[in-house]
Amino acid sequence: MRNLTLLTDFYELTMMQAYYHAEVNTGRRQTAAFDMFYRENPCGNGYAVAAGLAQLIEYINNLHFNDDDIAYLRSTGAFGEAFLDFLKTFRFTGDIYAVPEGTVVFPGEPLIRVTGTLIEGQLIETAMLNIINHQSLIATKAARVCWAAGGDRVLEFGLRRAQGPDAGLYGARAAIIGGCHGTSNVLAGQLFDVPVRGTHAHSWIMSFETELEAFRYYANLYPQACILLVDTYDTLRSGVPNAIKVFTEMRDAGIPLNQYGIRLDSGDLAYLSKMARQMLDEAGFHDAFISASNDLDEYLIAELKAQGAQITVWGVGTHLITSKENPAFGGVYKLVALSSKGEPWQPKIKISEDPIKVTNPGVKKIFRLYDAKTGKMKADLITLADETIDNEKDLTIFDQLATWKRMTLKAKTFTVRELLMPVFENGKCVYPELSVSEIQKYAEEERNTLWEEHKRLVRPQTMPVDLSQKLYDLKQSLIISVR
Amino acid sequence: MRNLTLLTDFYELTMMQAYYHAEVNTGRRQTAAFDMFYRENPCGNGYAVAAGLAQLIEYINNLHFNDDDIAYLRSTGAFGEAFLDFLKTFRFTGDIYAVPEGTVVFPGEPLIRVTGTLIEGQLIETAMLNIINHQSLIATKAARVCWAAGGDRVLEFGLRRAQGPDAGLYGARAAIIGGCHGTSNVLAGQLFDVPVRGTHAHSWIMSFETELEAFRYYANLYPQACILLVDTYDTLRSGVPNAIKVFTEMRDAGIPLNQYGIRLDSGDLAYLSKMARQMLDEAGFHDAFISASNDLDEYLIAELKAQGAQITVWGVGTHLITSKENPAFGGVYKLVALSSKGEPWQPKIKISEDPIKVTNPGVKKIFRLYDAKTGKMKADLITLADETIDNEKDLTIFDQLATWKRMTLKAKTFTVRELLMPVFENGKCVYPELSVSEIQKYAEEERNTLWEEHKRLVRPQTMPVDLSQKLYDLKQSLIISVR
Repeated sequence: MRNLTLLTDFYELTMMQAYYHAEVNTGRRQTAAFDMFYRENPCGNGYAVAAGLAQLIEYINNLHFNDDDIAYLRSTGAFGEAFLDFLKTFRFTGDIYAVPEGTVVFPGEPLIRVTGTLIEGQLIETAMLNIINHQSLIATKAARVCWAAGGDRVLEFGLRRAQGPDAGLYGARAAIIGGCHGTSNVLAGQLFDVPVRGTHAHSWIMSFETELEAFRYYANLYPQACILLVDTYDTLRSGVPNAIKVFTEMRDAGIPLNQYGIRLDSGDLAYLSKMARQMLDEAGFHDAFISASNDLDEYLIAELKAQGAQITVWGVGTHLITSKENPAFGGVYKLVALSSKGEPWQPKIKISEDPIKVTNPGVKKIFRLYDAKTGKMKADLITLADETIDNEKDLTIFDQLATWKRMTLKAKTFTVRELLMPVFENGKCVYPELSVSEIQKYAEEERNTLWEEHKRLVRPQTMPVDLSQKLYDLKQSLIISVR
Repeated sequence: MRNLTLLTDFYELTMMQAYYHAEVNTGRRQTAAFDMFYRENPCGNGYAVAAGLAQLIEYINNLHFNDDDIAYLRSTGAFGEAFLDFLKTFRFTGDIYAVPEGTVVFPGEPLIRVTGTLIEGQLIETAMLNIINHQSLIATKAARVCWAAGGDRVLEFGLRRAQGPDAGLYGARAAIIGGCHGTSNVLAGQLFDVPVRGTHAHSWIMSFETELEAFRYYANLYPQACILLVDTYDTLRSGVPNAIKVFTEMRDAGIPLNQYGIRLDSGDLAYLSKMARQMLDEAGFHDAFISASNDLDEYLIAELKAQGAQITVWGVGTHLITSKENPAFGGVYKLVALSSKGEPWQPKIKISEDPIKVTNPGVKKIFRLYDAKTGKMKADLITLADETIDNEKDLTIFDQLATWKRMTLKAKTFTVRELLMPVFENGKCVYPELSVSEIQKYAEEERNTLWEEHKRLVRPQTMPVDLSQKLYDLKQSLIISVR
């Protein structure tokens, strides 16, 4: 396991030393609560898919400063020996609550809540944001792409354009969580037990004298997974006819044709797929796949489908693995409460001219409200940690900016689920290990709790994320006291 | 060192097995030449900065299938025992030539040339593209940002928004190569011996009863690197006056003020920096830094400078570490020649309807032509590997699409440098290990060979990248023979 302890911003360490110094010299020992949340859904989506928790757990479990780390920090000249000594035995000892991976989430609500010493809460900020921001971004993008593809299979093909090895590896993991059916990334297949896919490239075709020879050789070796790339020379005049010739030879030889078909990688994919479908059908290959790649994204897939493209498998590369349209998730990590040893939490707020940038103070939780009859989600309600919701009673919730926008959920017509689950307690991981396919399945169920109106690609309906009256009042009073 | 051998697309392995199979069964042993090149500069820049070679070397040196890898590949059901046996002892045994890291490069020219067995040349495609694409992208983006900042220092602050740990780590490395003066990323500092920077966040200020108390505590602990974050409550009414109070106390106490100043992280950076400069100057702190962060990119930096912003250090995060405007480099890896054992190279071409997508066939090299008097670059000339250039004679070069665009370099008025350097010979690395700061220095010299016209952010002048007559003729004849 890689030691990512120094995968942090330098200022986390200078602040840690300063907190340590204050504690030793003034006895000022503080416990802190931090929230990780984000302010805007990527790509204008109606929701995001939380992902990366398993890697965050791995990071926290492995968090320690080894001798090399200490020696390096010493070499910067910024740290004293007392603090470096303290780091030698440093471990994370706090609590972490988080929404499960694959959960559908919305702007403004805490995806992760950390409570612990100010020192430890500060250190983990950067790596946490790095890991969760990246995987949540790609999982959300994948959900968009898969939604555009309807029921068709989507394969993640972006490793060569990913921003480094991890971006390819964990990006593939997140893409599967978001709904992709497989990836070309072999390392992701090995580490996460997810389906890997792929056949051959243009170089395979070009290494033979003729395209037909290349197809024939490949089909002979891989009769069970025979997807032939048909655009090296001329898709409709050479590629598709040669593929049909080879499929016919296989059929005549009594070889069972199961996973077989063609791949288009250039040209107009709507036109070419319709023509290819017709040619394959005429030759009796009705069940041959037509897969397509070449700079696809969710918008192009939706358009191609609207034009009747006969594509059944979509290979998506650059746009998915980088979330090209919007390559950063923008999650932040903010101090929301402090307590001097033993004292009750003192809620903290960060003010901004921009109302959506004012943080929600205090240690909080999230209740998700569902319609009891349809099982569809109605709203999220953020409350303080000591609040509960009784669905035997009417519940009125309201928008935190336009407070006159109110909605009353009648008693027993709704169900309630708490979103934040314990992940670490006193530094010990209490969260189950889940396979990526289990997470993928859960993420699909999560998306099924949304109406299609929340899922469309452009200008989706907004899901209400409201504050409880108690939290709202606390926030207002803190804003007034700071101003 | 991480084993990245399976960091590849599945089709590389299915093709490898097919090549292996063809070799064993038909005696068809092929040697291949592949070029890695790209077609378009990112962000509309006038050039790109090649980066990532050191990590490519590490990958190749460590390339081997261990027992776990073999077991995993067996579990996919796609590979036979003979091929898996072959993989057990597989090592890269070919030759790699590449432009040095930090070299200024242009679309269409080979940044890397691989010759070896078709099998080994195929395997390394994906990881090579992943590594080189990512680092060249960020190095190029960094060069743009640093150009916009003029002589000011630029710090890379993007780890929390990078696409996973590697994107942060190698992105920081590439940013330094592209001209950044430091990074917040401590792990990058440790691994690449580059300067790390950072002081404190809003949470530091918020953990004290008052801003002044927080500043004072920090200044007391870090008098040698005292940059105070002034925007937690109110930049001009609270932050800057409190910072001036603390600097004054330090001065009065006889503490030498060297690296000190303020950081702005919100609001209008032009206005705030001008006002803050005035306030600092009036208090006699003429040498206090004003650093700024908050969603900066090269365009905003250029605009802020044009408006007279008094910022001397720029902290750039999301836009740099993701190359947000254009988050993929688009490098490709194409087969350019084949040879059956012992036979001469047979050049290969990949045709496309789009002229810039037609590949340049054959084993090639690049000559860079400079004006002898100014030392500025005139053009790159791609030739076949057996060609030479004599600068004692006139040289006429021409555009490969608009062939009437010709330029004659008079004898002795130009100098010539070959760009592709040996990196691996027969699988053995022959390339020197260079420090990141050496590469950064070389990259700066490289950029100095360009006129400012090639460097501007928007619609820069295009550098000619031409083909020799011999290569041009070969390409035309292959196009005709394929059509």
